[in-house]
Amino acid sequence: MHFKDALPLQSGASIRAYDLSYETYGVLNADKSNAVLICHALNASHHVAGVYLDESGQVQAKSAGWWDSMIGPGKPVDTDRFFVIGVNNLGSCFGSTGPMQTNPDTQAIYGADFPVVTVEDWVDAQALLLDALGIQTLAAVMGGSLGGMQALAWTLRYPDRVRHAVVVASAPNLNAENIAFNEVARRAITTDPDFHGGHFYRHGVLPKRGLRIARMIGHITYLSDDVMNEKFGRLQVAPTLVAAPTPFKYSTQDVEFQIESYLRYQGDKFSEYFDANTYLLITRALDYFDPASAYGGNLSLALAKASAKFLLVSFTTDWRFSPARSREIVKALLDNQRDVSYAEIDAPHGHDAFLLEDTRYLGVVRSYFNSKVAV
Amino acid sequence: MHFKDALPLQSGASIRAYDLSYETYGVLNADKSNAVLICHALNASHHVAGVYLDESGQVQAKSAGWWDSMIGPGKPVDTDRFFVIGVNNLGSCFGSTGPMQTNPDTQAIYGADFPVVTVEDWVDAQALLLDALGIQTLAAVMGGSLGGMQALAWTLRYPDRVRHAVVVASAPNLNAENIAFNEVARRAITTDPDFHGGHFYRHGVLPKRGLRIARMIGHITYLSDDVMNEKFGRLQVAPTLVAAPTPFKYSTQDVEFQIESYLRYQGDKFSEYFDANTYLLITRALDYFDPASAYGGNLSLALAKASAKFLLVSFTTDWRFSPARSREIVKALLDNQRDVSYAEIDAPHGHDAFLLEDTRYLGVVRSYFNSKVAV
Repeated sequence: MHFKDALPLQSGASIRAYDLSYETYGVLNADKSNAVLICHALNASHHVAGVYLDESGQVQAKSAGWWDSMIGPGKPVDTDRFFVIGVNNLGSCFGSTGPMQTNPDTQAIYGADFPVVTVEDWVDAQALLLDALGIQTLAAVMGGSLGGMQALAWTLRYPDRVRHAVVVASAPNLNAENIAFNEVARRAITTDPDFHGGHFYRHGVLPKRGLRIARMIGHITYLSDDVMNEKFGRLQVAPTLVAAPTPFKYSTQDVEFQIESYLRYQGDKFSEYFDANTYLLITRALDYFDPASAYGGNLSLALAKASAKFLLVSFTTDWRFSPARSREIVKALLDNQRDVSYAEIDAPHGHDAFLLEDTRYLGVVRSYFNSKVAV
Repeated sequence: MHFKDALPLQSGASIRAYDLSYETYGVLNADKSNAVLICHALNASHHVAGVYLDESGQVQAKSAGWWDSMIGPGKPVDTDRFFVIGVNNLGSCFGSTGPMQTNPDTQAIYGADFPVVTVEDWVDAQALLLDALGIQTLAAVMGGSLGGMQALAWTLRYPDRVRHAVVVASAPNLNAENIAFNEVARRAITTDPDFHGGHFYRHGVLPKRGLRIARMIGHITYLSDDVMNEKFGRLQVAPTLVAAPTPFKYSTQDVEFQIESYLRYQGDKFSEYFDANTYLLITRALDYFDPASAYGGNLSLALAKASAKFLLVSFTTDWRFSPARSREIVKALLDNQRDVSYAEIDAPHGHDAFLLEDTRYLGVVRSYFNSKVAV
């Protein structure tokens, strides 16, 4: 969807002549009351569910949407009932206007000049997309992690346009440790000599070294200690077959342990497809999000504006956005006598759990949509 | 102390004509029964206590030893009673032979050719230093974190030469997450274009970008979530004085939050004095340490060799080497009917707590040395 008019941003800047990539699933009903907006986190896109077919009609490998276990016909967010919209956020690198695209004012690639966007800016852009689709009110807005922050922001910015908010594995703001991890990842990118102050496109290089480090750090924070120990522990890569006193290579630079190999692989893969400036922009949007800040840090006052009904979900082993952070939101909503359901799922997978198939997790969301979300 | 003879290493390599830097405090008694060896962790040295004076006899700023709250006259490890030895480990960069020095076989700077050393290698070198000092048996060996691993290794490698082991904020091995953090830090260093495969010395450059990132990651893991939130929270750097809708700069590269500023400062400082190859070597020594591995992972079997008496100390908010890891050691020692004292200190400072002044922590160590460690 192309947008001609300038979008004013929280920073005071604006962005004009931009596109938003989106996908829809299911059918919008006659009174347009069954729309569910899905908000994505750091490295996801508008492709939330289903698969892509190639020219011969075969399913493309690894083309499943990032929340395909959650969304589809007969799934917890049932596309036989709901009209689901996935949208790629401004500044991302999967089709919507972002740093890799041309600035209409200069005819140069934006790069580091792409304006800093916030969660609230994304919500504003999403609202304009809904306008263009003729949808006034959402049956629900839903997201995990940074996506959950967008869902929460929707209830504050457009309280009359959202009936339910489903906020999964999220937080009312980042704490110091969260910001710290973001900052290290950003520094790895911006101090990569191939970053060129964010204008690497014009130098024909990509700051892959920095992106790899950023992704490796990210992966550590997405997993729980438990699942890492269970999956990798101290397992070594292919054990040596020669007779030796120990199977180690005694090298500081070779891979010895499987966890090293896994992280390097994840870093390499990520650096091939993800835009460095997008990484900076999205982690900054995370850092900035803090609806309570305008209320002296009082989240209960901040959430007074929200009139939606809420489902909050957290995961016991998530140390990035721990259950305690979700409970802060629950408490602030209860302080305002809001209708809020909360499920703390005992899952071993850490923050990543929100993307995985877990019977209890999917069951809770299914029940919520079945019993609470009328169309 | 210079050592002429080659030291055989766990890797099968050896190192010859090496030096160990050490400091001593207090007086060795007549029967040489009051020696306490202090083992250091990643970025510390033989300078464990006391201060240095400049030429005019003034105390040099910031010259206090890294465990000065623990060791000295009248302190928990009382140098009026004990003869304390601090030693810089092989491969480090504070005086003992390491990658920055000249390989006697090639007359070139070692760089990446410095052999990989293990905790056990360090213990062997420390034992040779004791030989040279005429000390057969230690009243105690003591260390925190990686230093605690050395203390534990002492009790297994030279059980007859150590009467007490004090193991603080340590672990019987690294878990997957610990290795993961080490690996990300190493990759930041080795992929810095200024690293030159570890032979940066001959290029007249230093891989400071990588060292900065490594240190920033390290610092996050040394602190607890709680203390980070208390100390930094979401506090911003110098609030803007101009009228603006918000005090943010809306920049992905400038510092917005104090935690970012703190981490950048720590990274910058570290990159000025620490050797990159040493960083790789020491984190690898951490990765490799695993006394139970030769016993099919059974720590109780592994610790059967230890005959020393033990004090284990852990800190409640240490998520790098959590109390659970110390308890594994305690249990394995109890399985062998060993004499073990264990204190789990309720401290907010995370892993860093072992270096800080905490009344209860220092009190426990004081009581142990006063009541249990005869000279």
